[in-house]
Amino acid sequence: MILQSDKPKEECAIFGIYNSKEAANFTYLGLYSMQHRGQESSGIVTTDGSHLYRYANMGLVANIFTQPKIKELIGDSAIGHNRYSTTGASFLRNAQPIRVESHLGPVALAHNGNLVNSWDIRNRLERDGSIFQTTIDSEVIVHLMAKSHKTDLLEALCESLGQVRGAYSLLVLTPRYLIAVRDPNGFRPLVMGKRSDGAIVFASETCAFDITETEYVRDVEPGEMVVIDHTGMRSLYPFPKAKPSLCIFEYIYFARPDSYIFEESVYKVRKSLGRQLARVMPVEADVIIPVPDSANIAALGYSEESGIPYQSGLVRSHYIGRTFIEPDQKIRDFGAKIKYNVVKEVVNGKRVVIIDDSVMRGTTSRKIIKMIRNAGAKEIHFRVSAPPTVSPCYYGIDIPTHKELIASTHSIDEIQKYLRVDSLAYLTLDTMHKAVEGHKGGGFCDACFTSNYPVEFQDHAGNQKSLFTEYATEE
Amino acid sequence: MILQSDKPKEECAIFGIYNSKEAANFTYLGLYSMQHRGQESSGIVTTDGSHLYRYANMGLVANIFTQPKIKELIGDSAIGHNRYSTTGASFLRNAQPIRVESHLGPVALAHNGNLVNSWDIRNRLERDGSIFQTTIDSEVIVHLMAKSHKTDLLEALCESLGQVRGAYSLLVLTPRYLIAVRDPNGFRPLVMGKRSDGAIVFASETCAFDITETEYVRDVEPGEMVVIDHTGMRSLYPFPKAKPSLCIFEYIYFARPDSYIFEESVYKVRKSLGRQLARVMPVEADVIIPVPDSANIAALGYSEESGIPYQSGLVRSHYIGRTFIEPDQKIRDFGAKIKYNVVKEVVNGKRVVIIDDSVMRGTTSRKIIKMIRNAGAKEIHFRVSAPPTVSPCYYGIDIPTHKELIASTHSIDEIQKYLRVDSLAYLTLDTMHKAVEGHKGGGFCDACFTSNYPVEFQDHAGNQKSLFTEYATEE
Amino acid sequence: MILQSDKPKEECAIFGIYNSKEAANFTYLGLYSMQHRGQESSGIVTTDGSHLYRYANMGLVANIFTQPKIKELIGDSAIGHNRYSTTGASFLRNAQPIRVESHLGPVALAHNGNLVNSWDIRNRLERDGSIFQTTIDSEVIVHLMAKSHKTDLLEALCESLGQVRGAYSLLVLTPRYLIAVRDPNGFRPLVMGKRSDGAIVFASETCAFDITETEYVRDVEPGEMVVIDHTGMRSLYPFPKAKPSLCIFEYIYFARPDSYIFEESVYKVRKSLGRQLARVMPVEADVIIPVPDSANIAALGYSEESGIPYQSGLVRSHYIGRTFIEPDQKIRDFGAKIKYNVVKEVVNGKRVVIIDDSVMRGTTSRKIIKMIRNAGAKEIHFRVSAPPTVSPCYYGIDIPTHKELIASTHSIDEIQKYLRVDSLAYLTLDTMHKAVEGHKGGGFCDACFTSNYPVEFQDHAGNQKSLFTEYATEE
Amino acid sequence: MILQSDKPKEECAIFGIYNSKEAANFTYLGLYSMQHRGQESSGIVTTDGSHLYRYANMGLVANIFTQPKIKELIGDSAIGHNRYSTTGASFLRNAQPIRVESHLGPVALAHNGNLVNSWDIRNRLERDGSIFQTTIDSEVIVHLMAKSHKTDLLEALCESLGQVRGAYSLLVLTPRYLIAVRDPNGFRPLVMGKRSDGAIVFASETCAFDITETEYVRDVEPGEMVVIDHTGMRSLYPFPKAKPSLCIFEYIYFARPDSYIFEESVYKVRKSLGRQLARVMPVEADVIIPVPDSANIAALGYSEESGIPYQSGLVRSHYIGRTFIEPDQKIRDFGAKIKYNVVKEVVNGKRVVIIDDSVMRGTTSRKIIKMIRNAGAKEIHFRVSAPPTVSPCYYGIDIPTHKELIASTHSIDEIQKYLRVDSLAYLTLDTMHKAVEGHKGGGFCDACFTSNYPVEFQDHAGNQKSLFTEYATEE
Repeated sequence: MILQSDKPKEECAIFGIYNSKEAANFTYLGLYSMQHRGQESSGIVTTDGSHLYRYANMGLVANIFTQPKIKELIGDSAIGHNRYSTTGASFLRNAQPIRVESHLGPVALAHNGNLVNSWDIRNRLERDGSIFQTTIDSEVIVHLMAKSHKTDLLEALCESLGQVRGAYSLLVLTPRYLIAVRDPNGFRPLVMGKRSDGAIVFASETCAFDITETEYVRDVEPGEMVVIDHTGMRSLYPFPKAKPSLCIFEYIYFARPDSYIFEESVYKVRKSLGRQLARVMPVEADVIIPVPDSANIAALGYSEESGIPYQSGLVRSHYIGRTFIEPDQKIRDFGAKIKYNVVKEVVNGKRVVIIDDSVMRGTTSRKIIKMIRNAGAKEIHFRVSAPPTVSPCYYGIDIPTHKELIASTHSIDEIQKYLRVDSLAYLTLDTMHKAVEGHKGGGFCDACFTSNYPVEFQDHAGNQKSLFTEYATEE
Repeated sequence: MILQSDKPKEECAIFGIYNSKEAANFTYLGLYSMQHRGQESSGIVTTDGSHLYRYANMGLVANIFTQPKIKELIGDSAIGHNRYSTTGASFLRNAQPIRVESHLGPVALAHNGNLVNSWDIRNRLERDGSIFQTTIDSEVIVHLMAKSHKTDLLEALCESLGQVRGAYSLLVLTPRYLIAVRDPNGFRPLVMGKRSDGAIVFASETCAFDITETEYVRDVEPGEMVVIDHTGMRSLYPFPKAKPSLCIFEYIYFARPDSYIFEESVYKVRKSLGRQLARVMPVEADVIIPVPDSANIAALGYSEESGIPYQSGLVRSHYIGRTFIEPDQKIRDFGAKIKYNVVKEVVNGKRVVIIDDSVMRGTTSRKIIKMIRNAGAKEIHFRVSAPPTVSPCYYGIDIPTHKELIASTHSIDEIQKYLRVDSLAYLTLDTMHKAVEGHKGGGFCDACFTSNYPVEFQDHAGNQKSLFTEYATEE
Repeated sequence: MILQSDKPKEECAIFGIYNSKEAANFTYLGLYSMQHRGQESSGIVTTDGSHLYRYANMGLVANIFTQPKIKELIGDSAIGHNRYSTTGASFLRNAQPIRVESHLGPVALAHNGNLVNSWDIRNRLERDGSIFQTTIDSEVIVHLMAKSHKTDLLEALCESLGQVRGAYSLLVLTPRYLIAVRDPNGFRPLVMGKRSDGAIVFASETCAFDITETEYVRDVEPGEMVVIDHTGMRSLYPFPKAKPSLCIFEYIYFARPDSYIFEESVYKVRKSLGRQLARVMPVEADVIIPVPDSANIAALGYSEESGIPYQSGLVRSHYIGRTFIEPDQKIRDFGAKIKYNVVKEVVNGKRVVIIDDSVMRGTTSRKIIKMIRNAGAKEIHFRVSAPPTVSPCYYGIDIPTHKELIASTHSIDEIQKYLRVDSLAYLTLDTMHKAVEGHKGGGFCDACFTSNYPVEFQDHAGNQKSLFTEYATEE
Repeated sequence: MILQSDKPKEECAIFGIYNSKEAANFTYLGLYSMQHRGQESSGIVTTDGSHLYRYANMGLVANIFTQPKIKELIGDSAIGHNRYSTTGASFLRNAQPIRVESHLGPVALAHNGNLVNSWDIRNRLERDGSIFQTTIDSEVIVHLMAKSHKTDLLEALCESLGQVRGAYSLLVLTPRYLIAVRDPNGFRPLVMGKRSDGAIVFASETCAFDITETEYVRDVEPGEMVVIDHTGMRSLYPFPKAKPSLCIFEYIYFARPDSYIFEESVYKVRKSLGRQLARVMPVEADVIIPVPDSANIAALGYSEESGIPYQSGLVRSHYIGRTFIEPDQKIRDFGAKIKYNVVKEVVNGKRVVIIDDSVMRGTTSRKIIKMIRNAGAKEIHFRVSAPPTVSPCYYGIDIPTHKELIASTHSIDEIQKYLRVDSLAYLTLDTMHKAVEGHKGGGFCDACFTSNYPVEFQDHAGNQKSLFTEYATEE
């Protein structure tokens, strides 16, 4: 069986560095530290001021990049990308950074986020004679640049970005420039730092700064374009201002707890979510256990607030491959057992509170609950450190469709029955926002909980056909 | 750089199953669940009653075994092995299970533990004309069997085992028999279970039973030989009785917390060690943080006993490969940073207690402590949930030599200075034993803490030369 | 050392089949039989009437295509391509058939020959916003189609081909059409045949018909476009008529002797060239030996005409890889020795005539001659079954530059001295043409011997820079 | 389909070199030049006077050995081996040279030929406690040495070889010695040479001397053991004298025409066989065509003697892989077509004489004949430059069993009918021997034509069971 996670998937991590003797090596380390944001493919493009050098492959950062590959990626500026595919099929051709040659010279691009009008633009461009190389949304940005009559690259980039809508934290590398841009709503994070040797660094999360000994300076702001070349660094705001719509799911689930994003500690917010949950959804019980590892911090918050002891009642395997060979004699809850095992000692005869950070389809949760019940739990109370997820995301997170989201089609009572728990409760929308109250960055996007989408989107379901029938070995 | 752990390494996991339609598939799952006991190579041998079928390769279980490979491993009995090399070079030729053809017919063998007189025997056998295929200690067992004049396999096996000394939890597979043996001291664990379809299962730990839906029945006892064939199951005790010497390090570090070994819950013992530590080595502090993941449970015990809150102050990466490309501009504490990152939010301005389960060389501990100090910790207290490790193990654990073990050559004060902590304390020997007090299984081996070796060993350092210069790709 | 041949290289083979239940399998066999025309990469595109399915890889046909791959290439029409790179770097991305998606739908294209104005067109298209995927000349054809305002694919193809100049034997596959086109000069061969089950087949040479049990019908004529779809087969002549300029080097060296191309047997023409050579350049000698295998047939002709016995005095190895590890103690004539060895028995004490079909740089010839001299030959007479090669080819053959071509910069006498032979003679231009006299197909291109280029070419040396710095593993 | 040749297979090539700075590199080149004697696996063992270094793999020499591998094979003496399996399954474990460690220290061995009593010895050794590593006959030699009570390696080797019977051209390498031995009958060739830098070289054929710039000195004589160490070179004759029984098939088919073996030119003997055939089995015809490439030289002999012109009427592909994907619509004579194609121009309307060197099952011959008939041949006369092959070989050539050999079970008339030729004739036994008349080396083994076996053999058909069920990927 192919192992499927019941968690939403982040689409990617981006990393960029300007003016470092070991640009490729630092990019490799930065990407390694952000592997949790995309495990499908990775790539690095460097420049020595004349050419662009690229290497990308399917797989994990630590396996793809070897010493000789890093050595071949010469030059003192670089951008890198970890990909999990939200748009476009899962093939090497779709690995980022994209690199193309056009009348503007060579350009490379690493993109985190999703454009909502890329299929319209793509269809228009194809009608006009463009031939696309990939099936990912980001490619329209370079085609729009190639089509631009602007001969200045920055102008062409601004013109191009002026036509796309949606979420983009973007790094652009040319022989001259390293450019970092965040869309006007600022959906996805993008932090900026500085190394003691003067190198400027960009990354999706600050955990990439820790491993590269970079000091966190500030976020690239929503709508800001930071341009670096040999003349120095400039900050531009070329787009109309928009309402900040930072992705709150980054705090709830995606980002590493040791990162700072949107200018706040992920650990702090995540624990605060757990505390809020304990306040509004208390329960009498003997033990708190998280669904590891993503719910650990929220569970600690719940435990502290409630006084009920926290235990590691579920052990998670870290040796997981993509597929598993299931016996013909079906093993109950096989998919969950491959990943989790219950510590009987912890739950046997106990009233157990399970903390999870989100529930999508509910299938894995149900299996975990059954395993805990079979291990002898007397009562099981399920608590979710976020509101019910009712709508998909069009800005770069792979959340299932309405039809698949259990909270979109079922009441809390029905979900409780489906999960077979003694009680079930979610965080309320208000208390979730309380956990980020006073947040300097301002507004958040909570569309997956409310269906209030800050940027209108095209229903591209119908268009998102695979362009080609492709073979994995092909490229 | 090659990433080196400062933790002792377990040499292997073994798994066996008799009378199951999907013997190979269950063995694969069992090995997968015990991947923590050996990540270098894995192998499975099956039998259909006439032939033995073998497949082994370097790497992780989830990567090595594919559906077609499993299908080729026909038959309804099987044994499997995960290897981390304690003796013998790291080559495919040394992967277990060993399978040989001799006058006794085909025999396969999976061995967990270390023999202490294998080099003597090997030298004697070579002088007598034997040609060895591997450089692992286990091979002497099959050579002694091949040399035996007994024509009965069981007698030949007993005669062979009568000549070796040391630690062995052993599974032997022939077209007729599945045999499970544990050495008279019972150094290494070996559990026995039963599936509802009647299959008999053996494994190093019970976590392998959970994934294969096997009910835990009992341990194979020290000195016991369990023999299964078409006539049924027999239990023999062919060796002179010896003092039980169960490896206490299995509880402290190796075994999975969700396993039962030596007839007790690992989680329970591990937490008890943490509680004992809090009692005898208390400290005033703001926060308890474990070195994840192995010290998590002991830290929970320490936290519960002391009342000081437990926090996940260190984040551990699970995307680690075998080697990492370090920049020429050295990154401080690179080796530790690849694996761990500090959550600044948790430790900044705090008095921190770090809980670890053991300290070998102390190098990684020192780096972690420095990272926590740099993140703003006000005080750092280091607590170890075991006594100082002062001696190597000759029974199957890869503990560094006396020279390398910091506690073997330095006083507690000196270690505290080296680690640069505000206080340092270990669990005492007595309180460690208290944590397993009343243990049904009886005595434990604590040689690594006391240098009291239950079985005399040959100083084979001088003999442990590599026999051949071998190339990794060769076989 | 990388082994370099001193022979010109053919750029490719193409194969197409319409209306066959096993289109992919027959294409695979056809490509296999034309492996001599390109050994760098191969690819097949099939269609089931709705989609295009593609697989391409670096390496030999017999290694690349496996049963599962062939099975995945579903549909009853297919085109295939063997590539040796004349334009564009040697990367998988450049493997043909090219397949793109544009407003005309999916289109695949396999091209043999070289365009002479592709760089001009490419630069124009890039200035206009096109982004190219490969560095091969053939890609401009699909970009011109994509840019066309014609909505009918045939019209767009004609419009596109109306803009390119040079050599193209072309197969185009869409869900509806299989189209075969030969440029107005007919530089490169393209034969058409029919299988007994009704399938229509196209190939570069008839040897591909023998293995696929196809009956040779006729050549696609210079300037002809054959269009097949469900309504039947049509023949169009959409281009202005031009003087036929069939590549005479196909007869001299490239094509297999068992093939018919340009409506004549290659074996017959090649032998006739040998006979002519014996007539105009006779010599007294004891033995005729060819440089195997390409000069074998001409040598037989020379032997028959002269009465001097033909012997296999040089043995050629067929186990050659791309690179060879040379000892530090240099072996004399290593590059030649890896490929050829002398049969001492044949040449010792003899007056030897060596027959070769062409001399480019002369370096390998010189080494072979030295080896034969060392084996005891009394006299060595070198005869070439073609005129001196003085100019490069711009229509699809990889002939060295003027500077490298020994006959371009040296007189016959000087070459004789360089080769250290007792006599040296080439076929004259007139007698070469006599060997193809009365040829139904009409005129030949002999530009490599005369510098009379039938189609004006752009000196693209300056433009033929590599677009990107690419890594072999990348794609 | 798996492509099967209807030719007998040679089991191997051996190469050895003593006292050369680039021992591994020269061995690699020597093995490369003798690739025709074994294409399944290759290996090299070197010594620096202390250790043995080994690398072996499945596949062709030019693909297996890379620069880094050659560099790792340090030391100034080496032996190498190309294997085609006659005994033992086709797995890497069976690749030679064998290398073992015993009480005599490390020993490596490369063996060409077949032992006829190895299974008896093996069974005896296994009963006595030996465990074999491979399933090849050569391994008994090292086990007998390991079992020997002689502490001197040479004495142990002589004692071991004194117990085996059959064919062996053997190279033995230890940190001290390079030893070359040929069995008393001298079945298989073994030549000795010297490089100008003083290195001593051994090889199966002299073609290996040409590429390594080695001067051919003499053959290792039947029954001779040449021993080289730092004290110099000695020649021993430790075995009882036997009747020379050189393999005549080496001249007929196996050896390269540019080699000298048994102190005579292969080309000369092979051509003489063709001349004899023309004398005793003449025919009126228009054209002589060989089955390429092995029958080329005999065909030249036949042509010269008969005056009928020689033509290359069959083209042979050299891009052949191990398997081919056949369409479901069967292609007539597919197996032969993958390898051969007819030049219609040569045979159409002609009376054709086909020359082949041997016929085993006759299946491929029949297909080739049919292809030539379909190409328009008026008459087909089949001539074989050897007598009918009626018996298998037990000395190292893989000739089919009696049951499969068409000449063993059918009369010449019946074969002619089966092949559908207008006439069929073989060389007579007497005239075959005439072609090697006055041969210095003395007697030949012609058992495959006469069933007169010079050394009694064990019918090991029954014993030649595969010992293990093995998987190709295992080792």
